[in-house]
Amino acid sequence: MERIQLAEDLSFSRIIHGLWRLADWDFSQEETLQLIEECLERGITTFDHADIYGSYTCEELFGDALALKPELREKMEIVTKCGIKFASANRPSHTSKCYDTSKQHILQSVEQSLKNFQTDYIDVLLIHRPDPFMNPREVAEAFSQLKEEGKMRHFGVSNFKQSQFNMLQSFLDMPLVTNQIELSTYHLENFQDGTVDLCLEKRIAPMAWSPLAGGQVFTSQDEKAIRLREKLASIAKDVNAKEIDEVMYAWLLQHPANIMPIVGSGKLGRIDAAIKAQEIKLTVEQWFDILQTSMGHDVP
Amino acid sequence: MERIQLAEDLSFSRIIHGLWRLADWDFSQEETLQLIEECLERGITTFDHADIYGSYTCEELFGDALALKPELREKMEIVTKCGIKFASANRPSHTSKCYDTSKQHILQSVEQSLKNFQTDYIDVLLIHRPDPFMNPREVAEAFSQLKEEGKMRHFGVSNFKQSQFNMLQSFLDMPLVTNQIELSTYHLENFQDGTVDLCLEKRIAPMAWSPLAGGQVFTSQDEKAIRLREKLASIAKDVNAKEIDEVMYAWLLQHPANIMPIVGSGKLGRIDAAIKAQEIKLTVEQWFDILQTSMGHDVP
Amino acid sequence: MERIQLAEDLSFSRIIHGLWRLADWDFSQEETLQLIEECLERGITTFDHADIYGSYTCEELFGDALALKPELREKMEIVTKCGIKFASANRPSHTSKCYDTSKQHILQSVEQSLKNFQTDYIDVLLIHRPDPFMNPREVAEAFSQLKEEGKMRHFGVSNFKQSQFNMLQSFLDMPLVTNQIELSTYHLENFQDGTVDLCLEKRIAPMAWSPLAGGQVFTSQDEKAIRLREKLASIAKDVNAKEIDEVMYAWLLQHPANIMPIVGSGKLGRIDAAIKAQEIKLTVEQWFDILQTSMGHDVP
Repeated sequence: MERIQLAEDLSFSRIIHGLWRLADWDFSQEETLQLIEECLERGITTFDHADIYGSYTCEELFGDALALKPELREKMEIVTKCGIKFASANRPSHTSKCYDTSKQHILQSVEQSLKNFQTDYIDVLLIHRPDPFMNPREVAEAFSQLKEEGKMRHFGVSNFKQSQFNMLQSFLDMPLVTNQIELSTYHLENFQDGTVDLCLEKRIAPMAWSPLAGGQVFTSQDEKAIRLREKLASIAKDVNAKEIDEVMYAWLLQHPANIMPIVGSGKLGRIDAAIKAQEIKLTVEQWFDILQTSMGHDVP
Repeated sequence: MERIQLAEDLSFSRIIHGLWRLADWDFSQEETLQLIEECLERGITTFDHADIYGSYTCEELFGDALALKPELREKMEIVTKCGIKFASANRPSHTSKCYDTSKQHILQSVEQSLKNFQTDYIDVLLIHRPDPFMNPREVAEAFSQLKEEGKMRHFGVSNFKQSQFNMLQSFLDMPLVTNQIELSTYHLENFQDGTVDLCLEKRIAPMAWSPLAGGQVFTSQDEKAIRLREKLASIAKDVNAKEIDEVMYAWLLQHPANIMPIVGSGKLGRIDAAIKAQEIKLTVEQWFDILQTSMGHDVP
Repeated sequence: MERIQLAEDLSFSRIIHGLWRLADWDFSQEETLQLIEECLERGITTFDHADIYGSYTCEELFGDALALKPELREKMEIVTKCGIKFASANRPSHTSKCYDTSKQHILQSVEQSLKNFQTDYIDVLLIHRPDPFMNPREVAEAFSQLKEEGKMRHFGVSNFKQSQFNMLQSFLDMPLVTNQIELSTYHLENFQDGTVDLCLEKRIAPMAWSPLAGGQVFTSQDEKAIRLREKLASIAKDVNAKEIDEVMYAWLLQHPANIMPIVGSGKLGRIDAAIKAQEIKLTVEQWFDILQTSMGHDVP
């Protein structure tokens, strides 16, 4: 498994496992632990979380499993996020959907995440969404304090556009190490609006959420999904891939921005598809064939 | 009244008074003077003008009033603008609408403004609109000359997008001290397109024009205005505000970008509403409730 | 003929001749040579090419003509481009439309261009289109190698938006000397989306392709073309221009960004129109009249 250097003292596995649907899988602690171990054996050492996943339950489910074998903690990188609040039985104090990137909320959220994971540090904390009400000075203070206290090793963002990234970075005395954004053969926006360009310019590798477009390409009857599905199937044949998800991952992996796809499946077969995708070599013609099929027209 | 530091030797009152409709109020010189004094007593020391307001008449109306008590000049900051030309009986040489940011026009416009105000310096001169035909070298020359001659203390822009701001700034040997932009609960564009982000990144406080959306929220029958009006009324109740304009000002004042709303009313009641708004504390939930009502959908 | 300094050791003629339709003109070698000499006599020393023009034939047609008088080579600047591949009888290895900015393709493309032109150096090489699959490290390596080998004197881009320009530039140890973009009275996008702003900020002069909007303004029946045609005709009268193309060129030439229009005609009359346009002085009102006619509404 290739590794991507995010900072001098931090690298991620090229393929990342994402736990946002962990609560839906109805895994026992042992089954979750088994999934973690299967990932680690495959070289997938980076696990992506957020406070809110599973309506604020996934971090704890993961932590409970990890508690069965605490020695695994130092063999992995835990990423989690904060900054979104929504009404949930698990957060009675939340009355409505909003973002909160105040110093107080960031610190509280992190304390809870540490408890949930039963760990004393998180590898990378991401601000989950660009907050139009963000006070970057408060974010900077929270980050500095968390770093000093050893509770967080590094910081990043998620879903940030160029101006938001540059603005927040200008207040920090540490580099943001990643931007977790939606990237897939189906969802091209971040390739087109300069977000990926900025990652390259700033020399940060983006994490890709929904690298399979949330399954849309497999099942949706919209025109774009249908033509993309057919094209991917045809190219899968050409490159001897079993399934089109391998081609979808390969398309991201071959991009020069060092995109790290987040595989959000609890099934080993689907995880292995992402791993196998690393060996697929698409020609530049195939890469553009997929791009142009997604766009619905040729490049100019 | 809070003050916002724009430069080492320049601060604005947090609430700014805007004179763009002065000519419509049919004030006598004495009434205008009284308005000025009422503002100053309340700590509103910054007055926003433009050469073109009132079809090129407002500066002079203000200057005539000020001439009744010239000692007030040094107790206030005068902001004015240049760069727009339109046909007007008061400018017979103007044949059609255009922008003009040539050195010659800037210098001429400022000379006229100084005469109108019967003062020998302006605190801040703004380029009124980004001029697609702007020669930034000429603007830089005009600014330098005006600064040297002591006619202008500082410079800024209005309605500039990111690329326009960065472009012009790159030609200047002095920092632009503000960007006057449209900002309100109704008009979110500058929050969404990176303009406010750039203000934060560059550490400049924006002035907000039309902070009440030109009255649209009070009277318009468009869907957005209606739902915003209802939401603002409901929150006004919750925070014990008398009128929704207080909530609209509070929403801007609480944003971390140090937004300085320009109150364009000749009525003391409306001016006091902006002042009272400084004491309203919206929760983050209320702030987002207003935002989301304006957008017509939740944040993601 | 005015000259624009692009680098310490490189200047272009303000008017550039573009050869993208050379293959359509059915010129004999002698006729092409004559065109080149007529341009040079008029001070037009810069010739714009691309590998793909004329389905990969124009460079060679030009080179064959130049071979009749090789001493002309050092009196001109040759610009060419690479990075687009499409299926063509002249490139049997190309199976489908795609971009290719790999080191290997850039080097191969340049070798072929040198052969086509029968020269041992190109003045400026442009990446023809922003490549969403671009590996900027490979581009940087190719550029460095070509510069070291003396095959290319300078590098630039074409059709790059802000984020793409900044991204690629951040990987290069030499400045990009131009951005060749679509600019005309009809096509305003690059004036409006920050692309021209960035050229000014970076102090690079853009080359303008389709400065006459590909003839649309002359013949198209779309509303915008019709109203622009009428306005241009009326202004042509006012400034004593024979044809509206002179006004279209003048509109670009007077913009402060040092725009260098590419004249793509094989007819001396049309080339002379661009040259004459240098003497036309539009008033700022006329410039905005054309702008606003193209936009279909006044500036705010």
